[in-house]
Amino acid sequence: MKASGLIVEYNPFHYGHLYHLEQARLASEADCMIAVMSGDFLQRGEPAIIDKWHRAEIALRAGVDLVIELPYVYAVENSDLFAKGAVLTLDAMNIDSICFGSEIGDIKPFLQAYETLSTQTEQYNHILKEYLQEGNAFPQASRKAYEHIGLTTGAIDLSQPNNILGFSYVKTILDHKLNILPLTVQRKQSGYHDETINHKIASATSIRKSILQHNGLSEESRKSLPPESIEILQRYHDLTGTWHEWELYFPFIQYKINTMSFEDLKAIHGVEEGLEYRIKKTINSATTFEEWMKLLKSKRYTWTRLQRMISHLLTNTKKQEVENITKINQPPYVRILGMTETGKSYLHHIKSKIDVPLINQPQRGNHIYLDIEEKSIDSYYSVLHPNLKRNFRNREFKPPILPYHLDL
Amino acid sequence: MKASGLIVEYNPFHYGHLYHLEQARLASEADCMIAVMSGDFLQRGEPAIIDKWHRAEIALRAGVDLVIELPYVYAVENSDLFAKGAVLTLDAMNIDSICFGSEIGDIKPFLQAYETLSTQTEQYNHILKEYLQEGNAFPQASRKAYEHIGLTTGAIDLSQPNNILGFSYVKTILDHKLNILPLTVQRKQSGYHDETINHKIASATSIRKSILQHNGLSEESRKSLPPESIEILQRYHDLTGTWHEWELYFPFIQYKINTMSFEDLKAIHGVEEGLEYRIKKTINSATTFEEWMKLLKSKRYTWTRLQRMISHLLTNTKKQEVENITKINQPPYVRILGMTETGKSYLHHIKSKIDVPLINQPQRGNHIYLDIEEKSIDSYYSVLHPNLKRNFRNREFKPPILPYHLDL
Repeated sequence: MKASGLIVEYNPFHYGHLYHLEQARLASEADCMIAVMSGDFLQRGEPAIIDKWHRAEIALRAGVDLVIELPYVYAVENSDLFAKGAVLTLDAMNIDSICFGSEIGDIKPFLQAYETLSTQTEQYNHILKEYLQEGNAFPQASRKAYEHIGLTTGAIDLSQPNNILGFSYVKTILDHKLNILPLTVQRKQSGYHDETINHKIASATSIRKSILQHNGLSEESRKSLPPESIEILQRYHDLTGTWHEWELYFPFIQYKINTMSFEDLKAIHGVEEGLEYRIKKTINSATTFEEWMKLLKSKRYTWTRLQRMISHLLTNTKKQEVENITKINQPPYVRILGMTETGKSYLHHIKSKIDVPLINQPQRGNHIYLDIEEKSIDSYYSVLHPNLKRNFRNREFKPPILPYHLDL
Repeated sequence: MKASGLIVEYNPFHYGHLYHLEQARLASEADCMIAVMSGDFLQRGEPAIIDKWHRAEIALRAGVDLVIELPYVYAVENSDLFAKGAVLTLDAMNIDSICFGSEIGDIKPFLQAYETLSTQTEQYNHILKEYLQEGNAFPQASRKAYEHIGLTTGAIDLSQPNNILGFSYVKTILDHKLNILPLTVQRKQSGYHDETINHKIASATSIRKSILQHNGLSEESRKSLPPESIEILQRYHDLTGTWHEWELYFPFIQYKINTMSFEDLKAIHGVEEGLEYRIKKTINSATTFEEWMKLLKSKRYTWTRLQRMISHLLTNTKKQEVENITKINQPPYVRILGMTETGKSYLHHIKSKIDVPLINQPQRGNHIYLDIEEKSIDSYYSVLHPNLKRNFRNREFKPPILPYHLDL
């Protein structure tokens, strides 16, 4: 059996994702499509609009064969570590190819860009450092350094968000000399950061915005969502009364910060360069999350980086914990969230070749790295009714889900 | 000017407290009545039903001349440390006498009991240790040891709650050789633990229970509350929509515990003897505070001791912080919450004789011990609307209140 890997968040799953899945199946000629998906907290440092189980269920119904959870320590990270975690996890699953969406839609320029960077690493690093010292945030500094060595104006534009992410995947594959074929398909969508819905293909950001604004699945958002996505989003909301967003967590965050010392804050992953003082200074001047973020924001800290830090603060993820895992060039485990019959067969087929722990059903306290996942789900569900909290927590210790059978 | 001290919680202020205040004024012949009052968390390890500012305002209107805050580290403690903090704080205010309510209402038996205990300290300690080793909680073990040396059946019964507390005050005065005259008046009330309201004099416990059950000032509770108490309780509820009780805090507590490691838990004051395992084991089996407490309770841990531990957990009060303060035989500061004109005169009169920092209006970050008070108020107000939270927080840094003028 041949397998291809996708790296996804599905927040929520929309027609753009469906298009990517179908194109990837064609391009890879794979029998089994495996998605490594972020859990309840995402790369931009946000809680997912609905939880990972419901997002996994949508993915399975839409045609993904295996959904694997990207560990929290990689999911809520900059694009380099995010890519490392995702690619190494897929590699552990013995896949043949990875197929990502990009603005350019052609793999050759990515490979060329890798060559260019390899021959100019020193120069790139030098310039990057300079821009960082000038007070630029990492993404800006990195984009400018790419520009400097000609990677934004030639065959590929590495200032476009999906090209950047794709390049991280390619770089990880080649740096680690993995036996994985990189493939890309052109994204069919309005711009990644676009916030208005015009077409059937719309960005996840604009869809979330529309759902949150209307506190429901607006006409607008429905146009961009496949039926399984609409059904399960609605079901989650009927069950919980909630679409998850940062505002809901603000009372917890404010309470937490007010009871922490500067030292406690400094131990949290992402609290760097005296950010602990800025956090303490601003937290009580705001009455909403949005207000607080505006007070916290500066040139040096991107919105995304701050949000990731806040995820770590909410989940109490310490610097040391993250370092212990990410310094190893191997995923800590492979955790199956859900599978179809095809996924099951593939898993059976390659089981013996997986050389990291394979987790179908976590046992409480049997793996130190799962502690972080537990903190993550408990933080995520903290805003729900106590009974739901308990049920969702129990779900964490059950076997993977099957399509049409989310056993809560 | 002559001053007398009262040690109070006023949760809420009722006719029994008014009676005590009036009798104490007569017995002490003082010009100025000074109450040292617990802040937002109380000796039994509970959030006060309304905040300290509103409780202080009631006290001033009812005739107390000066309200001083008992620091959190003493307020949420066993009777020995509670007594130490309260008596030493009053001593710093240069008072002439302390007048407490007791079941017996006569000071001589307290002084005799102190003599008895002094001559049998070794035996008392020996028996206490034995009972503790048998798995008894401290109050039970201590009561049995008192029984053993004849302090429950002779002139005084040291198994009665207010006799016990009163004895702690007397013991503190005599142990520290303070220049304070101990006085007592007989409590006029139904039993301390009595939960039904029959008379105008009712226990604070039964009044709170009635208010919480009726979610309002029931006919029953009004009978036991002076007009200023009714007015201000009602005003607090109109403003906040809240009567504070543990149930409101359960989402925060559950979230907090779920994101803490065993080590984090162990650093919290009151988490002893492996209690961290019991906490983690039980927290997700409960959907309410009450349910959780029942799971947590055992012979060794009294309800009160567990609740104090939970206060420390909510406020993130560490073992080390408490020890640093309570090991010193001096209060960390004297903090004035409110005063009448008489109180102001007295303060002016003795100001130069106070040899600990006198705090009228705390400056942010000017005293390390005030960090603990800030954590305490932020935890207490965490369940309120963000705007109220901000206003109440600002109140903390304003001058003391005057009767009829709670400047929020």
